[in-house]
Amino acid sequence: MIPGFVEAEVATLVRAVAGEVPDRDAVLDRFARARWSGIAEPGDADAGRLIATVGAAAAIDLLTEGAAAMSAAAGGSFRDAVARWQPRLAVVDPLLHLRQAARFGARLLVPGDDEWPAGLDDLGVHAPSALWVRGDPGMLTRLERSVAVVGARAATGYGEHVTIELSAGLVDRGFAVVSGAAFGIDGAAHRAALASGGATVAFLAGGVDRFYPTAHETLLERIVRLGAVVSEVPLGTAPTRWRFLQRNRLIAAASRATVVVEAGWRSGSLNTAGHAAQLGRPLGAVPGPVTSSASSGCHRLIREYDAVCVTTAAEAAELVDPEAATARAPGRDEPSAERTRVLDALTRTGRDVTRIAAIAGLSVDATRAELGMLELDGLATTGPTGWRRVAESRSRG
Amino acid sequence: MIPGFVEAEVATLVRAVAGEVPDRDAVLDRFARARWSGIAEPGDADAGRLIATVGAAAAIDLLTEGAAAMSAAAGGSFRDAVARWQPRLAVVDPLLHLRQAARFGARLLVPGDDEWPAGLDDLGVHAPSALWVRGDPGMLTRLERSVAVVGARAATGYGEHVTIELSAGLVDRGFAVVSGAAFGIDGAAHRAALASGGATVAFLAGGVDRFYPTAHETLLERIVRLGAVVSEVPLGTAPTRWRFLQRNRLIAAASRATVVVEAGWRSGSLNTAGHAAQLGRPLGAVPGPVTSSASSGCHRLIREYDAVCVTTAAEAAELVDPEAATARAPGRDEPSAERTRVLDALTRTGRDVTRIAAIAGLSVDATRAELGMLELDGLATTGPTGWRRVAESRSRG
Repeated sequence: MIPGFVEAEVATLVRAVAGEVPDRDAVLDRFARARWSGIAEPGDADAGRLIATVGAAAAIDLLTEGAAAMSAAAGGSFRDAVARWQPRLAVVDPLLHLRQAARFGARLLVPGDDEWPAGLDDLGVHAPSALWVRGDPGMLTRLERSVAVVGARAATGYGEHVTIELSAGLVDRGFAVVSGAAFGIDGAAHRAALASGGATVAFLAGGVDRFYPTAHETLLERIVRLGAVVSEVPLGTAPTRWRFLQRNRLIAAASRATVVVEAGWRSGSLNTAGHAAQLGRPLGAVPGPVTSSASSGCHRLIREYDAVCVTTAAEAAELVDPEAATARAPGRDEPSAERTRVLDALTRTGRDVTRIAAIAGLSVDATRAELGMLELDGLATTGPTGWRRVAESRSRG
Repeated sequence: MIPGFVEAEVATLVRAVAGEVPDRDAVLDRFARARWSGIAEPGDADAGRLIATVGAAAAIDLLTEGAAAMSAAAGGSFRDAVARWQPRLAVVDPLLHLRQAARFGARLLVPGDDEWPAGLDDLGVHAPSALWVRGDPGMLTRLERSVAVVGARAATGYGEHVTIELSAGLVDRGFAVVSGAAFGIDGAAHRAALASGGATVAFLAGGVDRFYPTAHETLLERIVRLGAVVSEVPLGTAPTRWRFLQRNRLIAAASRATVVVEAGWRSGSLNTAGHAAQLGRPLGAVPGPVTSSASSGCHRLIREYDAVCVTTAAEAAELVDPEAATARAPGRDEPSAERTRVLDALTRTGRDVTRIAAIAGLSVDATRAELGMLELDGLATTGPTGWRRVAESRSRG
C-alpha cells in the first residue's frame, strides 16, 4: 500500500521506466526514490542519510509521520529537514514525472542497477537518490574509463581548439568524455567526442526533457541518440543556480578525472574542479596565455589546488592511467662534459691534440680518447692539419 | 715570491683591478684566483676542493709540483686533474688578463669581498674561484633581493611581452633582475629592468670584454653603465657551449629565485632551471598556449619538476618573499545554499512565501528568514503580489 496512490498504476509506470524490476519491494523502492528526487534538492545530506538508514520507501512514510518519528528511526534531528521537505511533498507529483519519463523514453536508474555509475557512491550521503537518463543507459558503464572535460562558457578560439584535440584524443584512447553540455568548452567536448565516434555523457542541472541551453537542443538530441543525457532531478524540473552547482558534483564523481580547459578566475568550472579534488579524483588544468583571463582560473588551479598541468590528450589520459603514460621521446642523452668541451675546441681547419687539450681544459690523454670517440661518431677527423670538426656546427648555449 | 713573475708588477696590477687589498697575502690570493679562473674550466670540482683545502696560491704551487704533492696535501687523486690543468698553466697568461681587466675597468672579485654574491657559496666545490665584473660591483649586493628571468632565444611576441611585464613588475617591488643577455627572453628582461630604472646583472659565458651575442653590444654597454656584467672566466675568453651551461649555474645560484618565461622542450633555460632546483632555489615557469612549442619547456617544468606556475610579477616576487604575497582580491563569499535557492525561486512578478519555500525546497521559516536578509541587502522586496526579486538577474551556472 502506498498512501495516496493506486499501487497497480504505480507498478505499471515504474516498470515502464525502470527496466527490469524483480519484485514489489523493488517497485516500491524505485517509486520512493523517484519521489525523493523531486522532494529533496540535489545533494541534501539529510535525505541521503535517512534513505541510507531506513530505505527510500520507509523514509517517505516517515516524512508523513514527522520529524520525531524520523529521529527515532534514524537518529539526529530532522526538524529543519522535515520543514523543508513537507512543502514539497504536497506539490511534487511523482506519477507526472514517471509519465513524462515514459513519454521521453527516459530511464529511471537507482543505486545497485548495473548501469549505476560506481563513482557516484563516493559522494556518500550527498549521492543522488536516483538518476533520470535519456539515450543509452548502457553508456553509463563507460564511465569506468572516462574523463570530464569542462570549462568556461565564454571560451576562446584557443580553448575550443584545445578542447577538440583533448576530447578526440581521449576518445582515441578509449575514454568516454563527460561534460555539462554548456556553451563553450562543454559543448566542444561533447561535439568532438561524437565526431570521433566516441562515448559521451552529459549531466544536466534541470530535467532531461528541458534541454539547457536551448541553443544546444540539436547537440543534446545527438547526445541522446549516440550517448546519454543524465539528471538527478525529475523531468520538468527547471535548472537553477543551486542545481548547476550540484550537477557539477555529479560530473566530478561520475568520471575518473576532471580536466578544466579554460576558466575565468571565478568560473563555475572551478566548482567542478573543487568537487573532483574533494573526492580525491585526479584534477588537470590546461594552461594558456597568462594574458588571457579565460585561462586565469586554470592557472589558479595549478598554483593553488595542485592541479596537474595538462597540455595533450595523452597527459589527460595519464591522469587516470599513469601506467599508460606514452613513453616520451627519450631525447638524446646530454653529451658528457669532456665531449662538449672537446667539441667546443675543435675547428673546421684543424688543431693538434695538445692545443685542443689546452683549449678544452682537459688532459692530453682524455682529449685523445674523446677525439677517438668523436671520430667513431663521424663528428671529428684527423689529417695533416691535426684534428678537425666534421659535422655541421651546433647552435650555441 | 711567485715563480715566473715579478711580484711588484703583480701587486700593482692586482691592486689596480681588485679594489682594496689589505696585505701581501691578499694580493697573492687574488692573483692565484685570477690564474685559476683561467686554468680550470668553470665548475671544476677538483679545483674547488683543492683551493678550499690549501688556498688558491698554494694550489698553484702544488700544480707545478704535480699530482702526488697535491694528493698529499689535499687527499684523493689529482692525476686526471693535473693532466688537464698543466697544459693550461703553460698557455694562460694571468698578467694579460689583469691588464685587460684594468683596460676595461673590470673589477676582480674573490670570495669574502663585500660584493661577492653570497648565493654562489651554495655551489660548494663548484663555486667560481673569482668573478670578473664590469659596471658597478656594488650592484652585486642587490642580488640579495633578486629574481633570474630567463628563457628561450627564439622567444615569441607573447614571451617578450610577458617578460617585460614581469621584469618591470619585479623592479617595482625592489628586485634586481638577473639574466644571461641572450637574444629573446634574456634581452627583454634586462631591457625592461633598465627601462624601469631597476638593478640588473648579466652573467656571460665568455669574458666581459667579449660581448656575446655581438648584436647585444649596445644593450651590454648599457648594463655596464647602469648595472653589472659578470663572468667567471678571464677577459679574452671565448664563450663555449660548456661555459654557457656553467654560466647558467651562476645565474641560478646568484639569484634568489629563477623564473623561466618561454623555453622549448630542450631549451638551455631548462638547464638553468635544473641548477635552481638542485640548489633548492624557488623555481617558477610561465605557462603559455599549449599549442606553442616555445612554452613546452615551461609546461614541462611545471609538470615534471614541480615549478610554480607564475602568471604575474607579484607571483614571481612571492617565490622569494612568500609573506609579501599580494593580498588577493578576496572575492565575494559564496552565497549560502539557502540564499542561492531562495534567489533561484524568486521572480520579478512575485510569489508567496509558501510557494517560494516549496520551490526552493526549504522550510517556510528558513525561507522567511532568508527573504528578510535578501530584503536588507536590497535583493528582494515584498508587496501585494508577495515576494519578488529586485536586482538584475544573475548569470546562470
